[in-house]
Amino acid sequence: MSFSPLIRQMIEALRGLPGVGPKTAQRMALHLLERDRAAAAHLSKALDQAIAGVGYCRRCRTLSETELCEICTDERRDASLLCVLQSPADVWAVEQAGGFNGRYFVLKGHLSPIDGMGPDEIGVPALVDCLEGSEVTEVILATNDHHGSHPVWIRRRDFWSLLDGL
Amino acid sequence: MSFSPLIRQMIEALRGLPGVGPKTAQRMALHLLERDRAAAAHLSKALDQAIAGVGYCRRCRTLSETELCEICTDERRDASLLCVLQSPADVWAVEQAGGFNGRYFVLKGHLSPIDGMGPDEIGVPALVDCLEGSEVTEVILATNDHHGSHPVWIRRRDFWSLLDGL
Repeated sequence: MSFSPLIRQMIEALRGLPGVGPKTAQRMALHLLERDRAAAAHLSKALDQAIAGVGYCRRCRTLSETELCEICTDERRDASLLCVLQSPADVWAVEQAGGFNGRYFVLKGHLSPIDGMGPDEIGVPALVDCLEGSEVTEVILATNDHHGSHPVWIRRRDFWSLLDGL
Repeated sequence: MSFSPLIRQMIEALRGLPGVGPKTAQRMALHLLERDRAAAAHLSKALDQAIAGVGYCRRCRTLSETELCEICTDERRDASLLCVLQSPADVWAVEQAGGFNGRYFVLKGHLSPIDGMGPDEIGVPALVDCLEGSEVTEVILATNDHHGSHPVWIRRRDFWSLLDGL
């Protein structure tokens, strides 16, 4: 006996979740269909609403439902510090760790010319736009490069030289 | 920074999946929003279609999209053997193990008077209906009771006495 088409399709779709293999997807599908169809309906609706409603902050480029995210609009944050990260997940990780009160800028991935990821692709021009005319005096590079992943503090004027070198 | 409402709602909904805790749900939500919105849309659609289209087989009560499931309509299956199980998951487990060529009947859980689960609640009357007028000569009880979980083979006439004792 194979699974019926709709159940097979559901299992396949659940495998689109990170870390979910075929056995786990089967278990999830059975659980939802047998015991918790309300949870399945709730999940479907939440996914649709998030896909439609969650975009990116115009300034820092993290995930946001509004044009500017909560951090960029928070006047209590220190506008002189800018932490440059690689993904919205990194922003959340730093926020959850606590202790940083500046603002963020999210690059899309890291420089990897071999994969066609140059400065333009990862968003360096947008970072320059973000810095120009801003109050930022220090930039904290907390991207994961291939040589290590310790954050680097850079004064703004040195950061310009760094960008020129790209 | 807390998550924005739609992302929070999405994380909460992902926690409705079995085995998914808060950290995993966050990771899943971020992955879908950042890297694979198509997978999220696909999952939403598959969930909706399965909820609407998957019901139960009228005869054996396993999950089915059709009035009678694939096993109940398969003429090659041995109609003299009936395996009584506790859930559609058990049907799949036995099918995937292979070797059984009879038919199934799915009880809804197990007898537990203290939880208000009597013979009527778990579906014994439906099992009797299924047996009456059928070709079944042997019943295999493969439910998990509290004393062990080995399947028990019972001749049909002895099964009636067993049911009378409930």
